[in-house]
Amino acid sequence: MNDTVKYVLSEERIPKFWYNLTADLPVPPPPVLHPGTLKPVGPDDLAPLFPMALIAQEVSTEREIEIPQPVREVYRQWRPSPLHRARRLEKALDTPARIYFKNEGVSPAGSHKPNTAVAQAFYNREAGIRHITTETGAGQWGSSLAFAGAVFGIEIDVYMVRVSYNQKPYRRALMETYGARCVASPSNETASGRAILAKNPNHPGSLGIAISEAVELAAQRDDTKYALGSVLNHVMLHQTVIGQEAMAQFELANDYPDVVIACTGGGSNFAGIAFPFLGAQLRGGKHVRVIAVEPSACPSLTKGAYAYDFGDTAHLTPLTKMHTLGSSFTPPGFHAGGLRYHGMGPLVSLVKELGLIEARAYHQTPCFEAGVQFARAEGIVPAPESNHAVRAAIDEALRCKEEGVSRSILFNLSGHGHFDMQAYIDYQAGNLLDLEYAEDEVALALAGLPSVPAE
Amino acid sequence: MNDTVKYVLSEERIPKFWYNLTADLPVPPPPVLHPGTLKPVGPDDLAPLFPMALIAQEVSTEREIEIPQPVREVYRQWRPSPLHRARRLEKALDTPARIYFKNEGVSPAGSHKPNTAVAQAFYNREAGIRHITTETGAGQWGSSLAFAGAVFGIEIDVYMVRVSYNQKPYRRALMETYGARCVASPSNETASGRAILAKNPNHPGSLGIAISEAVELAAQRDDTKYALGSVLNHVMLHQTVIGQEAMAQFELANDYPDVVIACTGGGSNFAGIAFPFLGAQLRGGKHVRVIAVEPSACPSLTKGAYAYDFGDTAHLTPLTKMHTLGSSFTPPGFHAGGLRYHGMGPLVSLVKELGLIEARAYHQTPCFEAGVQFARAEGIVPAPESNHAVRAAIDEALRCKEEGVSRSILFNLSGHGHFDMQAYIDYQAGNLLDLEYAEDEVALALAGLPSVPAE
Repeated sequence: MNDTVKYVLSEERIPKFWYNLTADLPVPPPPVLHPGTLKPVGPDDLAPLFPMALIAQEVSTEREIEIPQPVREVYRQWRPSPLHRARRLEKALDTPARIYFKNEGVSPAGSHKPNTAVAQAFYNREAGIRHITTETGAGQWGSSLAFAGAVFGIEIDVYMVRVSYNQKPYRRALMETYGARCVASPSNETASGRAILAKNPNHPGSLGIAISEAVELAAQRDDTKYALGSVLNHVMLHQTVIGQEAMAQFELANDYPDVVIACTGGGSNFAGIAFPFLGAQLRGGKHVRVIAVEPSACPSLTKGAYAYDFGDTAHLTPLTKMHTLGSSFTPPGFHAGGLRYHGMGPLVSLVKELGLIEARAYHQTPCFEAGVQFARAEGIVPAPESNHAVRAAIDEALRCKEEGVSRSILFNLSGHGHFDMQAYIDYQAGNLLDLEYAEDEVALALAGLPSVPAE
Repeated sequence: MNDTVKYVLSEERIPKFWYNLTADLPVPPPPVLHPGTLKPVGPDDLAPLFPMALIAQEVSTEREIEIPQPVREVYRQWRPSPLHRARRLEKALDTPARIYFKNEGVSPAGSHKPNTAVAQAFYNREAGIRHITTETGAGQWGSSLAFAGAVFGIEIDVYMVRVSYNQKPYRRALMETYGARCVASPSNETASGRAILAKNPNHPGSLGIAISEAVELAAQRDDTKYALGSVLNHVMLHQTVIGQEAMAQFELANDYPDVVIACTGGGSNFAGIAFPFLGAQLRGGKHVRVIAVEPSACPSLTKGAYAYDFGDTAHLTPLTKMHTLGSSFTPPGFHAGGLRYHGMGPLVSLVKELGLIEARAYHQTPCFEAGVQFARAEGIVPAPESNHAVRAAIDEALRCKEEGVSRSILFNLSGHGHFDMQAYIDYQAGNLLDLEYAEDEVALALAGLPSVPAE
């Protein structure tokens, strides 16, 4: 009996190309709009924020984009990440399902985020950039860019949502260990930060505000660019190493997924694992059910409008067409900080509109319940974000049991929970709240969106 | 150019045997003595604490002991652990040295400890044991046994040194996530705990006290045994998967270490990586310099006596001949909780006495300096314990640079530091103290050792 529990590939099997789903979609993605004119942006409009190589990737329609050798060299430290067969979890669930997970928690910063952080830092260094500004919520992205900055000799300034900055000193310590500077947002270092602090000196901050601060500084300084850890097309692109590796590992396993599952905040770990499978399907390959899982307290894909919106609170960023709860919406408190974003990545939104994927939402308590069950079976404590994928995977496996059918279920374990143990303490003490989002606030936020003339 | 950065083996390459150094030593290890009679113990004396299979391993002189299939099945989740070539660190140091590290931080609990926790839990389950008691300091061992208990369906009670229990709630949360019960020691659950609390209700606890509590309970209950995470021969044995894998990985790298380095608390991660290389040397293979690195504040190998001593404070355990600072000695405060033990594993002590290894001691500040340099180059934040090995490896690499010689340096990265970020915060704030141990306290502790008649 073949009872392998992890499928390992050698360094040479790290993908040589990122996969661009745009090339295989039946329709082109809607254009990105300028925040002032509401007209489609050109490369020059984005140049203050990003190096040209990334702007080119953002709008590329090429199917394959070569991964530069220096990026692959850094990837080799932890890639290809292992594909695990969760045999002990299957046994605990007494399910005929075959459950697989891709473990992105093995990266230096503990999540999938370094896949794009390393690429972005590389292209910035090639463009002669010395500083990068960014935002972070839970800290997964900030610590990943801090790591990438250390590798390529770029100074990183991370604007960290103040409530997380205060609650998660160890994430902050990780960024500082890598040599990054970490600033609580809203801060006094930017006009957008100062404006908010003038109204409320104790403002807890939000991802939208932190983005405004980071973008504002990058736009002002010649040697400084901005980096975003999700949402944008080039970020989705860089993450496709996950799904490409998984496809090769499924060949080793002599299997193919019936269902692919990932959690969605801005959509990047989801795109990373799902897009290569969707692309294969669009090119005539096997059909795969793809499920995006989001928090009930911030349900952009399942409850948001598909509309043009800004990426940030101060409306400094371009507008993209996406599923959104409105850029002025603030979700109620929950632990998966990486899923607390008003909008969904435009490409993920588009495949949802095209009917290529499903979406569902869970409250956090059942997700932590699944995460603890997973940890006791498989030994790995997932990040709160990843627990959403674990919940859906377990539910699909239980459905297999009910129906007496063996399906192959793949989910992306986007990160480990080593810096999120307070959430597990709260869960085990019965102190997690499953808050509903305010529907009227979303309605108001959506009503405030700019009206964009039809193309 | 072959510029591989990690050497990966497939699951089938997990060793099929543990390697027992005793078989290749020129002298037999000194016997273990009964705490009452001071005469050599027999298997029956140890039976209240350990299942017979482990007692047999403790005194075995067989060179190879087969790893049971169910243990290898659990190992497969993270083993073989990767051997990394630290190319970015080499470049940062501008050294001709070839620096390799074995990354044991990839295990579920984040260190080498699950290698023996899984084996011990398996043999206990085979013996029909339902509960295991143990102690933990920093929490690496407690969380590893908690994981192993979850896998084999054994209830785990961890007596955690009170000061760590209070300072490290996230380690505790990890154990509880795995389903273990974690109790602050000294506790009211044991006679030894109550005796100490009667004198000082706020006693901060120590590893020696926590061992007394765990041993006391195991000795009293039929369905309960005790497990120790280091020091004993069978623990060293289980850890030899590390060095055996490293030897296979060095073949892939077409290289062989000139120097092997590991930190030493009780000695198990050191034995794990070093004993297979020492054994090969004793059987006529290539000579390897082996360096044990310990904290200057608890320097058992470099400053302790080689004498018979107890493993615990209440003197409930058998006596072993080892390098010891005296079982009543309490080291001053420092962050590497896993290295805060008065004695050294008997086998590690013996190879030191035989002149087969070197030992050196460092204060914690230069170790954290090395750890941060390593993290910025290689992306992995080491545990405070492992920073001692990193320090010595960097020093050896710098010596290569001075001498203009390229040597191959292997060190064991025994664990990651994700649950030790407070130590990094203290280091970066300049708040680490490099305290000296009290020489008079050691002299007093050593003077109090029982006098054992010569064999």
